[in-house]
Amino acid sequence: MSEVKTKATLAREASRRLAILTTAQKNQALLAMADALVREQSRIIEANALDLVDGEANGTSVGLLDRLKLNEARILDMADGLRQVAELPDPIGETLESGVRPNGLQIIKVRGPIGVSGIIYEARPNVTVDAAGLALKTGNAVVLRGSSSALKSNREIVGVLREALVQTDVPAEALQLIEAVDRSSVDEMLKADGFLDVVIPRGGASLIQHVVINASVPVIETGAGLCHTYVEDSAEKEMALRIAINAKVQRPSVCNSMETLLLQAGFAERHWPELAERFRAANVELRGCGRTRELTPWIAEATEDDWGTEYNELILSVKVVGGLDEALEHIRRYGTMHSECIVTEDAAHAERFMQEVDAAAVYHNASTRFTDGFEFGYGAEIGISTQKLHARGPMGLPALTSTKFIVSGNGQIRE
Amino acid sequence: MSEVKTKATLAREASRRLAILTTAQKNQALLAMADALVREQSRIIEANALDLVDGEANGTSVGLLDRLKLNEARILDMADGLRQVAELPDPIGETLESGVRPNGLQIIKVRGPIGVSGIIYEARPNVTVDAAGLALKTGNAVVLRGSSSALKSNREIVGVLREALVQTDVPAEALQLIEAVDRSSVDEMLKADGFLDVVIPRGGASLIQHVVINASVPVIETGAGLCHTYVEDSAEKEMALRIAINAKVQRPSVCNSMETLLLQAGFAERHWPELAERFRAANVELRGCGRTRELTPWIAEATEDDWGTEYNELILSVKVVGGLDEALEHIRRYGTMHSECIVTEDAAHAERFMQEVDAAAVYHNASTRFTDGFEFGYGAEIGISTQKLHARGPMGLPALTSTKFIVSGNGQIRE
Repeated sequence: MSEVKTKATLAREASRRLAILTTAQKNQALLAMADALVREQSRIIEANALDLVDGEANGTSVGLLDRLKLNEARILDMADGLRQVAELPDPIGETLESGVRPNGLQIIKVRGPIGVSGIIYEARPNVTVDAAGLALKTGNAVVLRGSSSALKSNREIVGVLREALVQTDVPAEALQLIEAVDRSSVDEMLKADGFLDVVIPRGGASLIQHVVINASVPVIETGAGLCHTYVEDSAEKEMALRIAINAKVQRPSVCNSMETLLLQAGFAERHWPELAERFRAANVELRGCGRTRELTPWIAEATEDDWGTEYNELILSVKVVGGLDEALEHIRRYGTMHSECIVTEDAAHAERFMQEVDAAAVYHNASTRFTDGFEFGYGAEIGISTQKLHARGPMGLPALTSTKFIVSGNGQIRE
Repeated sequence: MSEVKTKATLAREASRRLAILTTAQKNQALLAMADALVREQSRIIEANALDLVDGEANGTSVGLLDRLKLNEARILDMADGLRQVAELPDPIGETLESGVRPNGLQIIKVRGPIGVSGIIYEARPNVTVDAAGLALKTGNAVVLRGSSSALKSNREIVGVLREALVQTDVPAEALQLIEAVDRSSVDEMLKADGFLDVVIPRGGASLIQHVVINASVPVIETGAGLCHTYVEDSAEKEMALRIAINAKVQRPSVCNSMETLLLQAGFAERHWPELAERFRAANVELRGCGRTRELTPWIAEATEDDWGTEYNELILSVKVVGGLDEALEHIRRYGTMHSECIVTEDAAHAERFMQEVDAAAVYHNASTRFTDGFEFGYGAEIGISTQKLHARGPMGLPALTSTKFIVSGNGQIRE
């Protein structure tokens, strides 16, 4: 049997024992894992140094090397993350529905683990700890497949975590790391029906597309965010400028940041020149439609490609629109159904926008940057689902659960 | 553009108007559809007669022809089904979570439609009406792809339903029928990411497998049910016999019927010969393990294949087991995680079974035949999901919905 199937089978067996553990048993394991990371940090940092040397030799970019690098502070953060997950409420065993049918059958719908989750991710080794913690808390075994550039780090981290588990009631086999880092191990995971119950890709658009197109195992898709902010003439000026700048500038590399600003014509005429100056001061490169450039001739022209591009950096496309209908049409055409915002003092327009825009999160008078598991109060960040089935938007721990109907009778048969 | 993409695009446009209709508007359309079916039944029966003639010419089996055949009674049933769906509570707009964050952001999670659903199904033309009704009630447009053997019937039914919609607020384009009935139209639907939001296969195991393996569009999988009933020594005899017979005999062709009976050794010794006679009287063909055959030498021997076969007819495999652990192991190995039952008076064993068996529905002292949307009180039968994501077990209308976060602020930005 291949590495993927062998390890998924071990994970499956472990998942059965894990599924029936108490919250206290799982939390104790999470804390033991956190302690072990801190205690064994020198081992992890040493292994990570080898990955960094390889990365430099292979010409890896400075940015990627920085994401790969582990130090004491980052390991403490990883350990803290596990401790926070231990403190979250355990969704497993929660009763979702309960009732007695006319024939006396008692039917209870309860939350349970999904089973064995496959996580496919890139570069950052903190995902190894993060995914392990979230999976174990929800009673799931996990098969981790990180990138080749972090293999030595991931191997050491998983080794440390599994050593910690040996002292707990959580079976160490619940954590599995795939060490074959060629593309074929990814593809095998995607087709491992019966071995894996779900695959969650965490990484760039091309990884996620590859997973969605090729997987027969169910997928939780996270990813693309081409988010718009639409500002109406009735908007309160300072609020609009503050929201627009925050949505673009506060952390441009993430999926909930703004990529395109839509301005109703009256607002644009009155306030775009000032807003454009503020964006320039924040080092944002601006690309505008014809009308925008009449107001600020010094900015570049936006092409058709710009409206469909998720920059994830300090670039912003800007378009002047006639009103709500044109804004809705633009968002429908170019949006990725992630996070969309209207800034307006017109309550009826706000309501229409919130109802008609089809996105995981729709905002009235607030920055799209809030689309996030922590900001939504879930205490964890499994990711932001951009699909419509199972989970949509920021995912808390319940996104890693399934359900079971428990039916109790006293001899009922169907007539 | 191909037929699939052209019609899915029309459905997408219609879905936007459909999504914002009121419950009353949708119900009025469902009732208009029901009335039209009854009023135009002669047109439908005529078209159906042509399918039946083609079917006979092609040597279609009597059983399939019977499932294909429409008459006045069956059309009245279809119309009644639509009226019942109109009476169900509308899940769209339901608030699932609601709260105010410390920064003042109000976050509400509401149910909305999925968008455009693709339904791929075999033979029975009543699925055309059924799927259309459930989709419209939940604000979804639907792209229907029935089998070639029912094409003329389906075309006439969809024609009648769309004529009825013209008089209502539901756009007629929300119902689309794919008329290309070669396999390539199925395969195109499975890869129509962005055009279809979900594909639901309704049919036999080979159709469902084909869909699961080939789809990149998210799938709701329904289907395989290799269900077990495990009877312990402590079971109340008459209850156990009644449940076992009901689970096998009452409707053997469906997925929640029993395929394998597991008997603890003491119960088998005392009661199997009598139970075997009752099964024989009900025309059930029995295939037993060695121990079973010592007690009833007149039955056939079960092979390894039998334990893994979903008969869906009056055949039953029977195995004597030592106790709960062996029963759990057998179910784990051969079960399809659909419906599993324990008959026992031992409460601790019942609890262990309910917790450890990983299935959509687990039963204590009741027939597995109850796994059904109507029996569970959902008032509708989208199908029985055998997957773990999105929906598991009998699916009511909420299985055809997604969610949206509606976030209202007064200028909040992220620090």
